[in-house]
Amino acid sequence: MVLVEEAEAIIQAQARDYGTERLPFEQALGRLLAADLKADRDLPPYNRVAMDGIAIRFSAFESGRRSFTISATQAAGDQPVELQDAAECVEIMTGAALPATADTVIRYEDLELQQGVATVLTEAVHKGQHIHWKGKDKKQHDVVAEANQLITPALVSMAAAVGATELPVKKLPKVVVVSTGDELVEVHEQPLPYQIRRSNSYMVKAALEKYGVQAELLHIPDDLAAAREQLQLCLQQYDAVILSGGVSMGKYDYVPQVLEELQVNRLFHKVRQKPGKPFWFGTHAAGALVFALPGNPVSTFVCLHRYFIPWLLASAGQVQQQKVHAVLAADLTFNPPLQYFLQVRLSINGRGQLLATPLEGNGSGDFANLVEADAFLELPREQSSFSSGEVYRAWPFKQLFS
Amino acid sequence: MVLVEEAEAIIQAQARDYGTERLPFEQALGRLLAADLKADRDLPPYNRVAMDGIAIRFSAFESGRRSFTISATQAAGDQPVELQDAAECVEIMTGAALPATADTVIRYEDLELQQGVATVLTEAVHKGQHIHWKGKDKKQHDVVAEANQLITPALVSMAAAVGATELPVKKLPKVVVVSTGDELVEVHEQPLPYQIRRSNSYMVKAALEKYGVQAELLHIPDDLAAAREQLQLCLQQYDAVILSGGVSMGKYDYVPQVLEELQVNRLFHKVRQKPGKPFWFGTHAAGALVFALPGNPVSTFVCLHRYFIPWLLASAGQVQQQKVHAVLAADLTFNPPLQYFLQVRLSINGRGQLLATPLEGNGSGDFANLVEADAFLELPREQSSFSSGEVYRAWPFKQLFS
Repeated sequence: MVLVEEAEAIIQAQARDYGTERLPFEQALGRLLAADLKADRDLPPYNRVAMDGIAIRFSAFESGRRSFTISATQAAGDQPVELQDAAECVEIMTGAALPATADTVIRYEDLELQQGVATVLTEAVHKGQHIHWKGKDKKQHDVVAEANQLITPALVSMAAAVGATELPVKKLPKVVVVSTGDELVEVHEQPLPYQIRRSNSYMVKAALEKYGVQAELLHIPDDLAAAREQLQLCLQQYDAVILSGGVSMGKYDYVPQVLEELQVNRLFHKVRQKPGKPFWFGTHAAGALVFALPGNPVSTFVCLHRYFIPWLLASAGQVQQQKVHAVLAADLTFNPPLQYFLQVRLSINGRGQLLATPLEGNGSGDFANLVEADAFLELPREQSSFSSGEVYRAWPFKQLFS
Repeated sequence: MVLVEEAEAIIQAQARDYGTERLPFEQALGRLLAADLKADRDLPPYNRVAMDGIAIRFSAFESGRRSFTISATQAAGDQPVELQDAAECVEIMTGAALPATADTVIRYEDLELQQGVATVLTEAVHKGQHIHWKGKDKKQHDVVAEANQLITPALVSMAAAVGATELPVKKLPKVVVVSTGDELVEVHEQPLPYQIRRSNSYMVKAALEKYGVQAELLHIPDDLAAAREQLQLCLQQYDAVILSGGVSMGKYDYVPQVLEELQVNRLFHKVRQKPGKPFWFGTHAAGALVFALPGNPVSTFVCLHRYFIPWLLASAGQVQQQKVHAVLAADLTFNPPLQYFLQVRLSINGRGQLLATPLEGNGSGDFANLVEADAFLELPREQSSFSSGEVYRAWPFKQLFS
């Protein structure tokens, strides 16, 4: 039996680099960027007009000129029209490239336009106004997005802006989710009174989709020979095998035995936590990692979010993962010397505080609560009573606030 | 010109019900559930053994019996084996259905098993222990997930558990994202010195993917006749048209004019905010809504998250959207009487407070910041100075903390 922190350290030490691949930038959303993205040109790439109006030389305004002959009109996307002398201006639109012979923009709101002449109605004009200068945001070859970050819509857009039609992304491990237990029937089947439907593996598969992992599903019967054969294949074909069930003390909990027969090196079995105590973890000589999770749905979900997903992120290069802390919103007592993962609903109050409201009617095994919960609050094993207002670490599993 | 709150109210009043459709439960992740999901059986569906060990009658233990003959072994998924008399027990596994003739489970840890007899080693046995009783979590026909919530991995799993092979989900509007501006070239092209690449529409498309919306992209040239023709088609084929650019005061900002010619009823043009002031919004007689957003990328993103996405969620039935408040982590000044949307990075401190750290080096138009930002902090227009420690509403646009 290991502590939660020990289990975490053992698993994180097994973070693996699965390499990189290139994807069309539009398909890279949600993946981790594998190399710095750099600007191919300055940003903005030219002195960009930021208001609709006219472009002039400031020296003309400064020396007293208030009326300018409109020599041309220049839209965004037009080649710049140069000024021939100081009495001229170019009528110019937002997004256009400022003529090299101009240095100041005056917006329509401060002008009167009549018969081809623009008259300035304000004295509040300063040199260089309403221009977004070339290279002000980024210089050519500057990093516009650092490696190892999640590819967001803004990053997709930046890739488009710098002409990166493909992005290098971290490869994801190949994952299989294996359910065990002869009490389980398929979702479309009508269970006998002492059977239930398979549901855990769908939960795991769905939870991993958010991270871009398309896990395969496999069910193996409570039969030693069949289990051995199928797990052997899994160890050859996948980088990570997530098992659900079969790791407790029961006569048919053959999973640890079979894994050890198949040369999976056990790194721990059992964690001082509730739920999820029977968690078994090991590594196969050929490289596959085995996360053998308890079959109770809440246990499965706790272990997935507390151990597997941080391992997945670390493997993809996100070593620094942001910690979430939340304020417990009710008193509670939990006696056993186990780290307790409490199902909570999260909310943010008017003071910007993250509140965690306990949701458990029927104890930690109540799977029905999980639909309502947003996160697990991790309550330390050294304590047995927990008071409203105290702050603990939280493991959110729902998309929060967006 | 309208206030931010007025713009919001006008848009939210146009929330539309686009109906429902049915999807295989495994494909419904991220969609909104359109009807209550109910339990087809009690949860648990039988008196479920919660520990590996033996099942006995408590009355036998109470009357002094400590040794029980093992009459049979029952795995999870086996038909229950009934006890023939009080001196017997069934060796039984987690997940099995408790025999009707038994009422108590004693775990292996509290037993000695020898030659077919189980001897109880503890006096701490109480009637009904280690049993997860039929219907304790939910009764048959109880609601296990209420309508109008996001379909999460836990909900997918619950659907599997209750045999809901299909789920009714809210239909999403058909959306097209239209970019305008002759300065824009395709991502794979090398722009001329006064051109830039299209990037905004990819950002909008990517941001909507999170909500299950697969938006189409369209670029229209700065040509009145072509724009009229193509927008006419959009109004016929889509529920919502998001335009980017062409709504300012420039000579080629033909969008408002064309929309009005096409019988789109303008509900407002310009919002007292920065960035995003030129935002234009209207409704077409045949039903389509038109969100004509300013072409600056940050403006586009502000309007998308502050107006379009809340409208999308309200249309899908999420009328109560959780508000996020965050603590400003630096002082700043903003003078114009406009609601200011500040790009911030979010973090959670050790007291469970959400902190918003301003990110703007180069003002609100700096698109390069957007890659680093997590949210916009909405600073009220009545104020011009804002102090560290004050709490304001935030509009997160990155996946937070999970």
